[in-house]
Amino acid sequence: MRNINEDTITQAVIASMSQCENDRLRAVMTSLVQHLHAFAREVKLTEQEWFHAIRFLTEVGHITDEHRQEFVLLSDTLGLSMLVTSQNNRKPPACTEATVLGPFFVPDAPEYALGDDIANGAAGMPCFVSGSVAGIDGEPVGGAQLDVWQSDEDGFYDVQHETDADGRIVPQARGRLRTAADGTFHFRSILAEAYPIPHDGPVGKMLEALGRHPWRPAHLHFWIQAAGYEPLITHVFRDGDRYLDSDAVFGVRSSLVVDWERHEAGIAPDGTTSDTPFYTLDYRFVLNPLEETA
Amino acid sequence: MRNINEDTITQAVIASMSQCENDRLRAVMTSLVQHLHAFAREVKLTEQEWFHAIRFLTEVGHITDEHRQEFVLLSDTLGLSMLVTSQNNRKPPACTEATVLGPFFVPDAPEYALGDDIANGAAGMPCFVSGSVAGIDGEPVGGAQLDVWQSDEDGFYDVQHETDADGRIVPQARGRLRTAADGTFHFRSILAEAYPIPHDGPVGKMLEALGRHPWRPAHLHFWIQAAGYEPLITHVFRDGDRYLDSDAVFGVRSSLVVDWERHEAGIAPDGTTSDTPFYTLDYRFVLNPLEETA
Repeated sequence: MRNINEDTITQAVIASMSQCENDRLRAVMTSLVQHLHAFAREVKLTEQEWFHAIRFLTEVGHITDEHRQEFVLLSDTLGLSMLVTSQNNRKPPACTEATVLGPFFVPDAPEYALGDDIANGAAGMPCFVSGSVAGIDGEPVGGAQLDVWQSDEDGFYDVQHETDADGRIVPQARGRLRTAADGTFHFRSILAEAYPIPHDGPVGKMLEALGRHPWRPAHLHFWIQAAGYEPLITHVFRDGDRYLDSDAVFGVRSSLVVDWERHEAGIAPDGTTSDTPFYTLDYRFVLNPLEETA
Repeated sequence: MRNINEDTITQAVIASMSQCENDRLRAVMTSLVQHLHAFAREVKLTEQEWFHAIRFLTEVGHITDEHRQEFVLLSDTLGLSMLVTSQNNRKPPACTEATVLGPFFVPDAPEYALGDDIANGAAGMPCFVSGSVAGIDGEPVGGAQLDVWQSDEDGFYDVQHETDADGRIVPQARGRLRTAADGTFHFRSILAEAYPIPHDGPVGKMLEALGRHPWRPAHLHFWIQAAGYEPLITHVFRDGDRYLDSDAVFGVRSSLVVDWERHEAGIAPDGTTSDTPFYTLDYRFVLNPLEETA
């Protein structure tokens, strides 16, 4: 430990953790240190670049608050989030694929009954969403909890809008529903549009310096939870979107891209008459059963 | 880009940077993404661990302010700072070795004349420091600028103490001097003591979870700048310190450890009479000449 140099530093750091009583933590941190050091060696990171990285991370930390999570954006835009999602959600091919959670999920969203309008005033063309939740053998999953959230026609989530007089976010185009006994669900919302991830902060500057755009293709988030099945966090993407092949957070999978059908003004699926054009979207989710414990 | 999975995500992220016009940035980020992903794959990072990491980094960002730099502490305690220092300061063996800058340097420290007391009221036993700055062929380096900073007897730097009525830090045991024409310098300060790095934040929690202590062995920081020579950022460590073999930031090098000599009360090196015991420290710094540009 008295003659640490660039060749011995990695082993010295690993050795310093030998008293760690948490085997998993020690294994994770050992690997992290090895890869962090390997990176710094491989590019021969300069002192000026190190200072720049410290300043960048400081800015990421300072813009992060209860409504904005710039570290999640950073992880998303570097593909780490999608990698972690993928390697923790290996499933039989028949199951619906998972994708990134993203920074806009909010716990304890307002509860709605099937058929309700979850838009709650959010701006956008009407969109009637229907579908079903089933198990891998086709059995319907009744009573499954669906968290749904999405952007409005301007590309903003409710949490990006102004808070109310009490400093609270007004939930819009966000809600929690339960599937019927036959596994089906339906609700009204608005048409999701493509949007740029928040790019007025350090992650936005990073994307610009890298020659990357901040856009995500239009999608509707689902988080589905049902007893006896693995939870499913995913999106349904809108076919035809120009950003499907360059999603800023690498979340697209072909199996999640479907046609959101446009209809002229007239009778809507809920029996009302829409005097504007509207969209319909139908999707069948297939959950993976939890492994039985003997 | 529509079928990204755990096997293809890394190449997809690298491909997204193909329009980057800064070759160095693209190379650094490509390597960073490869190593970050390799780490996540190697340990099969779970979603829960990812959440924990996001929360940890958020806490690091939130405790960081103009007087406290938790990201530097994180880099220091993971050995990244020492690695970057080492690989950017390769020198002939005769030169004084560099070590980490640490989080406590302050630009534009007060200027002192040779022989002054830079303690400015900091608590500690008197310590009379002397030495010289030379080039690799032994030539004296006159007029070299020395930034000096250190902890007090309680193990705190001035920036860790309360600010004054105007919210400013009072510089203590910190100053800037210039070597005489013959390359020598001398000043009075206080005895540096071992101290724990700030450990009441997330980095402190990390060290505890890893079974590591937060202590650094006693040292005096020097940043030496002189025309025609590479700048030198280093410490002089105090021999006999119990933490020399387990420095929390991996900064110790044998060549920087010297005897700080204790003297009983009596005549001090500056000719005054000290009625308490005092210390003396003498060190010869050898700078590396800048490479001539043709």
